[in-house]
Amino acid sequence: MMKKEVVNLAQQLIQRPSISPDDQGCQQLIAQRLEKLGFTLEWLPFNDTLNLWAKHGNTSPVIAFAGHTDVVPVGDESQWDYPPFSAKIIDDMLYGRGAADMKGSLAAMVIAAEEYIKNNPNHQGTVAFLITSDEEAAAKDGTVRVVETLMARNEKIDYCLVGEPSSTAELGDIIKNGRRGSITGNLYIQGIQGHVAYPALADNPVHKAIPFLLELTTYQWDNGNDFFPPTSLQIANIQAGTGANNVIPGELYIQFNLRYCTEVDDQIIKSTVEKMLKKHHLSYRIDWNLSGKPFLTKPGKLVNSAITSLQEVADITPKLDTSGGTSDGRFIALMGAEVIELGPLNRTIHKVNECVSCQHLGVLAQVYQRILERILDK
Amino acid sequence: MMKKEVVNLAQQLIQRPSISPDDQGCQQLIAQRLEKLGFTLEWLPFNDTLNLWAKHGNTSPVIAFAGHTDVVPVGDESQWDYPPFSAKIIDDMLYGRGAADMKGSLAAMVIAAEEYIKNNPNHQGTVAFLITSDEEAAAKDGTVRVVETLMARNEKIDYCLVGEPSSTAELGDIIKNGRRGSITGNLYIQGIQGHVAYPALADNPVHKAIPFLLELTTYQWDNGNDFFPPTSLQIANIQAGTGANNVIPGELYIQFNLRYCTEVDDQIIKSTVEKMLKKHHLSYRIDWNLSGKPFLTKPGKLVNSAITSLQEVADITPKLDTSGGTSDGRFIALMGAEVIELGPLNRTIHKVNECVSCQHLGVLAQVYQRILERILDK
Repeated sequence: MMKKEVVNLAQQLIQRPSISPDDQGCQQLIAQRLEKLGFTLEWLPFNDTLNLWAKHGNTSPVIAFAGHTDVVPVGDESQWDYPPFSAKIIDDMLYGRGAADMKGSLAAMVIAAEEYIKNNPNHQGTVAFLITSDEEAAAKDGTVRVVETLMARNEKIDYCLVGEPSSTAELGDIIKNGRRGSITGNLYIQGIQGHVAYPALADNPVHKAIPFLLELTTYQWDNGNDFFPPTSLQIANIQAGTGANNVIPGELYIQFNLRYCTEVDDQIIKSTVEKMLKKHHLSYRIDWNLSGKPFLTKPGKLVNSAITSLQEVADITPKLDTSGGTSDGRFIALMGAEVIELGPLNRTIHKVNECVSCQHLGVLAQVYQRILERILDK
Repeated sequence: MMKKEVVNLAQQLIQRPSISPDDQGCQQLIAQRLEKLGFTLEWLPFNDTLNLWAKHGNTSPVIAFAGHTDVVPVGDESQWDYPPFSAKIIDDMLYGRGAADMKGSLAAMVIAAEEYIKNNPNHQGTVAFLITSDEEAAAKDGTVRVVETLMARNEKIDYCLVGEPSSTAELGDIIKNGRRGSITGNLYIQGIQGHVAYPALADNPVHKAIPFLLELTTYQWDNGNDFFPPTSLQIANIQAGTGANNVIPGELYIQFNLRYCTEVDDQIIKSTVEKMLKKHHLSYRIDWNLSGKPFLTKPGKLVNSAITSLQEVADITPKLDTSGGTSDGRFIALMGAEVIELGPLNRTIHKVNECVSCQHLGVLAQVYQRILERILDK
């Protein structure tokens, strides 16, 4: 029964072509259902991004479902087996852009909340929804702004379930309980341009930089920890030269990115790299861009509730994992919340023929409902 | 008297705007004067390039004047003080594109030959001219093709005076008695592209290449010798990356150029680099481009004749030098000839307001004439 309702709502969401950051009425659809349940709604639009903050209850603890209604573009539509916004079901698979990332999860969250509140109209604590229409694109006016707003008025989220598709081979095999940080360095190493026939009159920045690059790419930042792999640095771009084979370049550009764990922070990374540059006597300029700090939710009430719920409902024991890119979870973690990501299989996300199993959506709603019960019930 | 004649002919040559490889009648002008002296003319055109091979005499030794009638473009003509093809003389300086590189030398050679042959109509050996209209551009159908033609029929050049502007501060202060070789490597190092968040699934070709690059750029090829500075390698271009900061590049491109002396050769260079690449277990492709092998004319009859002639006529003792770029001398040296470059000051070549001293042109003609006498007279 839950499955049918979840799939039905997921189809209605998929049929609204909400390419980032255009919500196309998805949040309105969710808001109407939450309002009927007694949720109080707060709209928090910022620029072109629509955000919804909805609450049922006014006491601690606060458990929030977090998600996004926006989807990535469909790419070459002719390559899709079914129109990407038709929400067609074939062999119990629901097809469409956003089916797995993450309108299926949103539908499961709404149905889970409906079931839970019908059964527990006077529950302890607060059930909340934090929904944005810009997670896939710039992510500047979405979750991060809502979090800023809530923190400014001292509103708290204690537990947060992000509906990102975390599963890989089976539903619920992976819970993401953290994400690494991401920082990019744009480095310009100066030399003196000249003719290759007269190297004494020039100063080749590529040659000068090589010992530094060797140290940069072999430096052991840390050994990781129980929850994170070691910090990893990759040179993403490198460029020097005029194109001519007889000109010594005047400048070398190097762009590198680090995915870093909680054993270091962005200040340590910056000062370590700058110390290396100075040690190698390089003349340089460096611009840093911090995309996201790392976060980690250690096993505690939320992680344990999720694990037990998955074992009970889906007969699977999930692994905790912190790999992969960044998500909006990093913003919510800044509030001091325990944050995990738990959602359907991510095999088809951002691809043609994105799809999600209808059966999985039904199970996911039951898991979400069980987590609410475990967190909020005395 | 020689000065006036040299300058007059140089002006006629400069007034013909012979941008490479368009001769614009320069060679015809020279050929007419040589024919009057009794030279036999042979035209050797290849594609768009005009070449003249002219001889006076049929016995050994053969001393050839070598030069080019083509000039580089004028650049921004508005920056010239006088129109670049007007051949204006101001304060005994002759201005115009090609004045120093190398229509002044060509005029001095023709006048030197005229004087010498008038005075020595029955000279020993052979006076020859090898003139091309493409030294400044591709240099594919010029001197190199004439040399191939002569070698195919076993014609020999024993001594060759190239009119390239070798002087730096004073007329005759430098004789170039050789040139370094030039070889370029276009190297592609293969890796596996991937996402920076998943480095285990990728293989960064930049990281892999750094230890190799360190060895490549610090390797001591040789110590040079009495005539050449040590072989020198410079990375001219390096490129990897898609532009995105989250993609590990799949390939690294490196272009390097060596200016090499006679202590190594192109085979040694190629095999040394390939050995290094293999030692570092790199997956690569490399394309080589040999622009010119080095040549060296050790002190002998030609060098000594030139030094003595400069001392007698210009009261200067030249230094021997092999620095700088390549010239057509490299092709003629392949015939086994002693080759030197001796010409006017190179301070203004390839620049706006290119110019040459009229007085220097007169002296240069006398020096060339003295060299002919020293080589051919019993």
